[in-house]
Amino acid sequence: MSVTAPAGFIAAGVTAGLKKSGGLDLALVQNLGPLQNAATVFTSNRCKANPVLWSEQVMRDGRVSAIVLNSGGANCYTGKIGFQTTHATAEAVAEALQVSAGDVLVCSTGLIGDQLPLGKLTAGVQEAAAVLATDAAASADAGLAAAQAIMTTDTRPKLSSHRSPTGWSIGGMAKGAGMLAPGLATMLVVITTDAVLSSPQLDVALRAATRVTFDRLDSDGCMSTNDTVSLLASGASGLDADLTEFTDALIALCTDLTLQLQEDAEGAAHDVAITVQNAGSEDEAVRVARAVSRSNLFKAAIYGNDPNWGRVLAAVGTVDAADAAFDPYGIDVAINGVQVCTAGEPDQPRELVDLKPRAVSVVIDLHEGSAAATLWTNDLTHDYVEENSAYSS
Amino acid sequence: MSVTAPAGFIAAGVTAGLKKSGGLDLALVQNLGPLQNAATVFTSNRCKANPVLWSEQVMRDGRVSAIVLNSGGANCYTGKIGFQTTHATAEAVAEALQVSAGDVLVCSTGLIGDQLPLGKLTAGVQEAAAVLATDAAASADAGLAAAQAIMTTDTRPKLSSHRSPTGWSIGGMAKGAGMLAPGLATMLVVITTDAVLSSPQLDVALRAATRVTFDRLDSDGCMSTNDTVSLLASGASGLDADLTEFTDALIALCTDLTLQLQEDAEGAAHDVAITVQNAGSEDEAVRVARAVSRSNLFKAAIYGNDPNWGRVLAAVGTVDAADAAFDPYGIDVAINGVQVCTAGEPDQPRELVDLKPRAVSVVIDLHEGSAAATLWTNDLTHDYVEENSAYSS
Repeated sequence: MSVTAPAGFIAAGVTAGLKKSGGLDLALVQNLGPLQNAATVFTSNRCKANPVLWSEQVMRDGRVSAIVLNSGGANCYTGKIGFQTTHATAEAVAEALQVSAGDVLVCSTGLIGDQLPLGKLTAGVQEAAAVLATDAAASADAGLAAAQAIMTTDTRPKLSSHRSPTGWSIGGMAKGAGMLAPGLATMLVVITTDAVLSSPQLDVALRAATRVTFDRLDSDGCMSTNDTVSLLASGASGLDADLTEFTDALIALCTDLTLQLQEDAEGAAHDVAITVQNAGSEDEAVRVARAVSRSNLFKAAIYGNDPNWGRVLAAVGTVDAADAAFDPYGIDVAINGVQVCTAGEPDQPRELVDLKPRAVSVVIDLHEGSAAATLWTNDLTHDYVEENSAYSS
Repeated sequence: MSVTAPAGFIAAGVTAGLKKSGGLDLALVQNLGPLQNAATVFTSNRCKANPVLWSEQVMRDGRVSAIVLNSGGANCYTGKIGFQTTHATAEAVAEALQVSAGDVLVCSTGLIGDQLPLGKLTAGVQEAAAVLATDAAASADAGLAAAQAIMTTDTRPKLSSHRSPTGWSIGGMAKGAGMLAPGLATMLVVITTDAVLSSPQLDVALRAATRVTFDRLDSDGCMSTNDTVSLLASGASGLDADLTEFTDALIALCTDLTLQLQEDAEGAAHDVAITVQNAGSEDEAVRVARAVSRSNLFKAAIYGNDPNWGRVLAAVGTVDAADAAFDPYGIDVAINGVQVCTAGEPDQPRELVDLKPRAVSVVIDLHEGSAAATLWTNDLTHDYVEENSAYSS
C-alpha cells in the first residue's frame, strides 16, 4: 500500500522518458488534507543538489501539498539552469494540482552533472496529475507505481505500512541504498500518515526515527548530494496520535525500509549488522561501528566468507580517543555468535564461524560503559565494483 | 643497493619458514656505526602491534643498533605471548650481534591474531646474523635480499638510494601499499644514511618527509596496526649533512618509495594523483583530497575509465566546514587535463577524458586560498576485491 495506505494521500507513477530503460521514472504524491503538515531530513553533504536547495525553501513554513520525484537524473551540479528546472517542475505540479508551488517538494535521483529535460518533466507531471484526478481510487496500485518510478538500480520497490490499534496509519516508500546509493546516488524516502500531528511534532518524530534507522545504514560510506526523507501528515483519520506511540511506529516503519535498502544494496552478497556494546555512549558506539563499516578490507573479507577479526580491530583502532573511549587491548569480538577474540587475544578458532548465510552479525564489546548501537552495512563484492565502474557510460 | 648503499650498514634476508610460500621472510639490518642514531614514525592506530609497542620503548633513547623485520605474521592482537615473542626476537638479535636488546627495533607484517613461531624466528635471526658476519661484502645483494624478505603480497621489492654531491648517501627499502597495505597489513620502511646527524635531527627530517610522502599515500583508506618507518644514521661517511639539504634528499627518496608502493598496490589498475589547489591551507587541501581518495564510488568509476566528476564533488561535499573552507558551488574539477567542471557546472564534455593510461590526475580547485597538496591513491578493482576477500584462508 505504500504512501497511499494512510487516508488523504493519492499517488501516481508514470513514464516521463527520463530513464534510458523506458520504465516508470516520475512519481507524484498529493496530500488532500485536511492538514498539510510535513517534516524533512536532507543530506548533510555540503554539495546539495538543486531539488534539495529548492525543498529546503519549501520547508520553511512546514507546509507541503505535494511531492514530485524523478529518477533518470540527480539535477546536481547543473547550476542555474538546473535550479530553474527544479523550480519549473514545482510550478508545473502547482498548476496541475491547483496548489502553491511553494508547497511542492521536489526530489531527483540519477547521474550528477547532467541537465534534466524540462519538457519531458512537465509532460510527465501533467500525465501524473491526470492519473491522480481520474484514477485516485486505485490507490494501492498507484502507491506501488510511485515506488517503482523512483527506482534506479534498485531491483525491487521498497514499501512499508502500519496501522495503529487506535486507527491511524503510516505508509512509506524508499529507493537507494547507503548514504550515496551504490551506483546511482541518493536515498529518497516518502512517508505519509493520516494521524493529526503538527509539523513540529512530525519533525521531532522524524529526527528521532532517522537517527536510529537511515542514519545507521552505511552501505558504502558514500554520502549523496540528493538524500531526502520526508514525512507528510494529512490528518484525514481525524485521530490525534500520541507522539511517543507515533514515533515508535515510525521507527519500526523506517527500520523496515532501511533493511529493505540494505538487502537490495548494489552487488551486496552479505547484509552485515555491526553492534558495538558496552560503549561510553551511543554516539561513541556508532562511531566505532561506522569505522568498521567503512573498512574495505573488512568488507572484502566478509565477501570472501573470511572471519578476519584482525581487520575489525584494525578499523576500531582508527577511531580517535576523543571520539570514543576504549582500551584497545581490552576488546572482544564475536562474529555470527562465535567469540573469536577476547580482551584483544585470539579466543575461539575462526574456522568455527560460518559466513555462508547472507546475514552477518559482528558484535564488538568495548568494556567501557553501558551504551550500544547497531549499524548496518554490506560487503565489498565483485558485483559492487562492476556495477559502479561504468555507470555514467 | 637499498639500505646497504650508505657506508656502515650491512643487511641480510633469509628464509625462516614463517611464510607458507617458503620464500625469504626475515630481514636483518645492522648499523656498524660509529653513530647509532635513529628516528622512527609509527602507526597512529590505537591498536598497535606488539613489535610497535616494543620499538616505541627502544626509541626512548634514540639509539638503534639493528632492526629485524619479518613477514608471515603481524604479531598483533596476540597478547602477552606475542609481546614475549617480540622481546625474545630482539634478545636473539642482541646475542647474535653482541649489541643491547634495548637497541634493536622489531617490525612484523602479515595476518593479525596469529602467534609467530618463536623457534623459527630465533633460528632465522641466527642464520641472518651468520650472513652478516661472513658475507657482508656482498652488501648489494644483501640489501636486495632484505627488501625481498619483507614482501608480503608485494609483487616486487621496493628500493631507492641517493648519493649527495658532498659525498653522503641515503638508501631505503619498503613494503606494502596504503596505510594498511591492501591484503597483508602494514607498510614497513627502513631508511639508512651514513651522514653525521643526531637522533633529534633525524627525527625532524623524518617527520618532515613522511608528512608529505607516506602520509599522503592512501591506497585503500585502511590504517595498519604495524606501520613503521625508521631512519638510521651510521655517520660512517664522516660528513656532516646540512639538515635542509638532507631533508630534501630524504623527501625525494621517500617520494620514490611512495610511488613504488602505489604502483604495486594490490589489484590496482590506475595510479591516481589527487591535487587540491587554492585551498585555505595545506592541511585543508589534504583533507579534501583524502575524502575523494576514500570514495569507493569514485575509485570504482576510475577503474571503469569513467570520468565521473559528480562523484568527486559528492566526496568533496562530505568534508566538514570546520575541516576545510570552500564554496561548494564554486569548485573546478579537471581530470587528466580536461576541465570537466567549472564553478560547479559542467564544462568540457566528459568524453574528452582518456582514462586508459594507468596514471590519472585529478585536480580540484577550491578557489579559496593559495595552498595545495597532492595525495596518491588507487582505483577499486575486481582484483582488489579478489585478493582481499580470502586472505586468511
